[in-house]
Amino acid sequence: MTTGTPIHVFVPNTDQRGGDYSEMAKAYRPSHADATYDFKYGVRAVQGGGRSSARETIGRVAAGALAKKILKLKSGVEILAFVSKVHQVVLPEDAVDFETVTMEQIESNIVRCPDPEYAEKMIAAIDKVRIRGDSIGGVVTCIARNVPRGIGSPVFDKLEAELAKAMLSLPASKGFEIGSGFAGTDFTGSEHNDEFYMDEAGNVRTRTNRSGGVQGGISNGEIIYFKVAFKPTATIGKKQNTVSREHQDVELLARGRHDPCVVPRAVPMVESMAALVLMDQLMAHIAQCEMFPLNFSLQEPIGMASSASELAPNLS
Amino acid sequence: MTTGTPIHVFVPNTDQRGGDYSEMAKAYRPSHADATYDFKYGVRAVQGGGRSSARETIGRVAAGALAKKILKLKSGVEILAFVSKVHQVVLPEDAVDFETVTMEQIESNIVRCPDPEYAEKMIAAIDKVRIRGDSIGGVVTCIARNVPRGIGSPVFDKLEAELAKAMLSLPASKGFEIGSGFAGTDFTGSEHNDEFYMDEAGNVRTRTNRSGGVQGGISNGEIIYFKVAFKPTATIGKKQNTVSREHQDVELLARGRHDPCVVPRAVPMVESMAALVLMDQLMAHIAQCEMFPLNFSLQEPIGMASSASELAPNLS
Amino acid sequence: MTTGTPIHVFVPNTDQRGGDYSEMAKAYRPSHADATYDFKYGVRAVQGGGRSSARETIGRVAAGALAKKILKLKSGVEILAFVSKVHQVVLPEDAVDFETVTMEQIESNIVRCPDPEYAEKMIAAIDKVRIRGDSIGGVVTCIARNVPRGIGSPVFDKLEAELAKAMLSLPASKGFEIGSGFAGTDFTGSEHNDEFYMDEAGNVRTRTNRSGGVQGGISNGEIIYFKVAFKPTATIGKKQNTVSREHQDVELLARGRHDPCVVPRAVPMVESMAALVLMDQLMAHIAQCEMFPLNFSLQEPIGMASSASELAPNLS
Amino acid sequence: MTTGTPIHVFVPNTDQRGGDYSEMAKAYRPSHADATYDFKYGVRAVQGGGRSSARETIGRVAAGALAKKILKLKSGVEILAFVSKVHQVVLPEDAVDFETVTMEQIESNIVRCPDPEYAEKMIAAIDKVRIRGDSIGGVVTCIARNVPRGIGSPVFDKLEAELAKAMLSLPASKGFEIGSGFAGTDFTGSEHNDEFYMDEAGNVRTRTNRSGGVQGGISNGEIIYFKVAFKPTATIGKKQNTVSREHQDVELLARGRHDPCVVPRAVPMVESMAALVLMDQLMAHIAQCEMFPLNFSLQEPIGMASSASELAPNLS
Repeated sequence: MTTGTPIHVFVPNTDQRGGDYSEMAKAYRPSHADATYDFKYGVRAVQGGGRSSARETIGRVAAGALAKKILKLKSGVEILAFVSKVHQVVLPEDAVDFETVTMEQIESNIVRCPDPEYAEKMIAAIDKVRIRGDSIGGVVTCIARNVPRGIGSPVFDKLEAELAKAMLSLPASKGFEIGSGFAGTDFTGSEHNDEFYMDEAGNVRTRTNRSGGVQGGISNGEIIYFKVAFKPTATIGKKQNTVSREHQDVELLARGRHDPCVVPRAVPMVESMAALVLMDQLMAHIAQCEMFPLNFSLQEPIGMASSASELAPNLS
Repeated sequence: MTTGTPIHVFVPNTDQRGGDYSEMAKAYRPSHADATYDFKYGVRAVQGGGRSSARETIGRVAAGALAKKILKLKSGVEILAFVSKVHQVVLPEDAVDFETVTMEQIESNIVRCPDPEYAEKMIAAIDKVRIRGDSIGGVVTCIARNVPRGIGSPVFDKLEAELAKAMLSLPASKGFEIGSGFAGTDFTGSEHNDEFYMDEAGNVRTRTNRSGGVQGGISNGEIIYFKVAFKPTATIGKKQNTVSREHQDVELLARGRHDPCVVPRAVPMVESMAALVLMDQLMAHIAQCEMFPLNFSLQEPIGMASSASELAPNLS
Repeated sequence: MTTGTPIHVFVPNTDQRGGDYSEMAKAYRPSHADATYDFKYGVRAVQGGGRSSARETIGRVAAGALAKKILKLKSGVEILAFVSKVHQVVLPEDAVDFETVTMEQIESNIVRCPDPEYAEKMIAAIDKVRIRGDSIGGVVTCIARNVPRGIGSPVFDKLEAELAKAMLSLPASKGFEIGSGFAGTDFTGSEHNDEFYMDEAGNVRTRTNRSGGVQGGISNGEIIYFKVAFKPTATIGKKQNTVSREHQDVELLARGRHDPCVVPRAVPMVESMAALVLMDQLMAHIAQCEMFPLNFSLQEPIGMASSASELAPNLS
Repeated sequence: MTTGTPIHVFVPNTDQRGGDYSEMAKAYRPSHADATYDFKYGVRAVQGGGRSSARETIGRVAAGALAKKILKLKSGVEILAFVSKVHQVVLPEDAVDFETVTMEQIESNIVRCPDPEYAEKMIAAIDKVRIRGDSIGGVVTCIARNVPRGIGSPVFDKLEAELAKAMLSLPASKGFEIGSGFAGTDFTGSEHNDEFYMDEAGNVRTRTNRSGGVQGGISNGEIIYFKVAFKPTATIGKKQNTVSREHQDVELLARGRHDPCVVPRAVPMVESMAALVLMDQLMAHIAQCEMFPLNFSLQEPIGMASSASELAPNLS
């Protein structure tokens, strides 16, 4: 390997907006979108990462806030995400009750983990890498309660496929699993299948929920839950070998502020993208299946607003 | 729980096409699309599962075969998938060399695992559940070699997002991870980042490939690799509790043939969907970025055919 | 001009399906898609014209039949098209009452013109060119009664824009005009504007309908009406100069059956495409505007089915 | 008819931006989008018309300027529109030579008519209605020279269909015709067909161009030309009967500035939308047909840029 010329790169910082980005233009940050944007477009926005910055998601979160409100008003849908892993600190599966967990519990600490004990461990893990100028990633778990039965599509646009695309479109995400996910492959079919039963209210329900609320691409009325993996932040404060835009081997040392763990900040992004997917699918479902229901004894129409006072005032 | 009325359900079988499906219409198979199709549409195709059957993917595989051929001719792209896990038999990460693995190795055994020793173990695992009338799932790993740099999009339609959607649209898939995926969250940024270097041919390359060939939604020229989790087949030969279409608790015993492990059969589906995604993105890239390249020193144009003889004869 | 080599081209004929198309492959029929398909694809389906044949519209008409039925059941929408011009025989504007014209009147003769007197003139015009081996075109007028107010979109996807695209996608169509259309440019604004008034049922109505039922891209509750121009059939039985696929000047004489005037056959195509556009827009409208009505005193919700018996039985 | 209560409505005026719009909110302007926006959304932007204002087209014109530049650089495409009718002043068909007309000729007068004599007549016609507080419409003709052969699609997305949709999406447009259009129905097929011949450069050409440069949905290399009808401006300075938002019959007298004829201002909108359609289709064509040409002797590849210096500098 050629010995690299040292390059000191300045990373944007809210306190130093006027900083000098000229050096940053010279080196490709490892595992960042710097190089691929140049490969594709031959041009990129150096300041702040341009479209590759997680700031891009602000529009998604704004739209998601509206979608969440409408879903709640229309069908009582509640979407909540929380941090379930930071580096090697793993929140146990049974530490959170999907039926009862609240936003208050999630927002009670800075890492957005509803379990206070594990929140402390996660915060400690982040502090540990921060002082070393390093970074760590983690996992966000998302649940959606009260999603109507029948939302989604049977083939290409399966509900889990739409959710997977939405989540992998978030910066730094590298994995998605719904229901039992990868761990579900450790089971046999007889262990894994979710048996149906009739509940006291006369609804078809499942006793277990390894399906994660989706079967055959369509919601079954159980809680939808899935996990998203986020890699460690690419921009770190440690010296790295890389190449410059001029194709020279160089050493890079990022200066300025950088975030050692973006996972807690991904929580509202995950919730918002889930809300946008569900809202889109709900709109499609109502247009496709509720204008002309074929069999009311099997379908459960979500229905339209019956009066202005029912919905409109709550949207303002 | 109400004691279920026993229902014996007949599962379609290539030897008994004329079989009686009337009983199958009565019970919802656990973890199958039976119930959700009824919730959504109020009607479903009982025979063979209709659109929820993996037979639906035949069109995808046909189209994928063309896409693979074109990608190969145009850019030398090679797409190969193989089984890397069956139930609890896990192919070690280092057992397969992504640079050199061949389709011959993969197709040398019935489970489509390129390592003969692990192939035997997987076959044994499948045989074990077959005789019990049970089923198992597993994981398919897919690689794409020689994908040009610059394929993909920076925001919503990231290459990994398109791949994730494509894979989660396959029947029985429950998870997707690209590059280091979920396991990548165990690393720090300094351990995880893929350092860039200039190779002897003057190309920007990375020393490691935890990114899985994609950074910021766009291919970086390294091998693209990802994994897809497939749950155990829902239809099994063991008695299960469930409910009927008429909302009665019943016992279900599927009769007829059923497949104890569909994972080997998912291999061509995964390859085909990967090829279709890459083909779509390649077409978009050429239209968007190669008609009007901005900076040839950074971009690497894929280019157009220069003569009819170059391509046309090979497509027939 | 080079003197062309005579080529006799055989045109498909329902009585002679086994006919020899080899000659047809040699010459480009003037004003047909023969040449442009070759320019674009380098290959074309010679037999029957492939996708350029009006037979392609069979799927549109089948889907349109369903859409018409649903629109009728849901909102009482009635879509009727008829021939209003054949060559130089022009049906006077006031010969047809858009409020009362029926399908029976339209279907009472072979040219699908609701006025018997003009139907006779049109039939005579067609007979006249048939015996000469020539062809003629004409105009189809389409009306849609009882379209709910509020259907359409305000900017790119205006209802008239969707209709225009749908109509210009029909083979041989060369023009589209809605409401007063091109003739509306002869009026001043004070002559052309449709004054609003409140009718006895308390609905906002217009006294005239030069808008053709659409204002600002959105339906206003009046009858939607538009016209579509169809050029004379390109394939004729008279000798024409043209060029061959091998770029030689040739003379072409089409043999076999050809249709001297396709305009009456375009009537169901026009109706079907109108129904598909309206159905799409109705579905979008219900999803976008009726799930969350903002102001019931201004909007007129179309509403959902309130019982299975209301709709389902009628769709079977 | 109920005697209307007089309402004086203020129409926005660049000199009086702070004007009082409160009265305008009360009455629906005849033939304007006022009423339909309320029917659909239950809410509308009163000031300036919101999305129904032609100001909305600014983004289209900005994007169109780029598309025109790229089309010119890539394929020498020239797109020019001009006013060919204002009220009852009709520019004769032979007054403009499509082969040679220039932007300078078009821009030489305020009505954007390339014939000075008719421009004067049009200006006089507009002046005449302006003083009466009335309005008039007209027709814009658009031509596109040097469009490559093979651009467009054979079925739903025919080039003429895309153009028709684009034009009918412009405010106040009521009609579209390509090539011979509605007048083409006066001809027989033998009179109307465009005979092919080989020109001296060895290209397949047509002697006439009644097709308007498009056959079977695909460009044939001749000049594309079409016409768009624009109705008289809805907002006028004369008293009109209408209804208020509260469903009362009222009289409306618009105050403030209003434009008596928007047709000259529609010229750049028409050019821009044509450029955007052609650009989209060119991109699709290159991706679909030029990556893998099937028959070079029939197709005429447009080709990719062969060097950065060829294109990039000209785009800045």
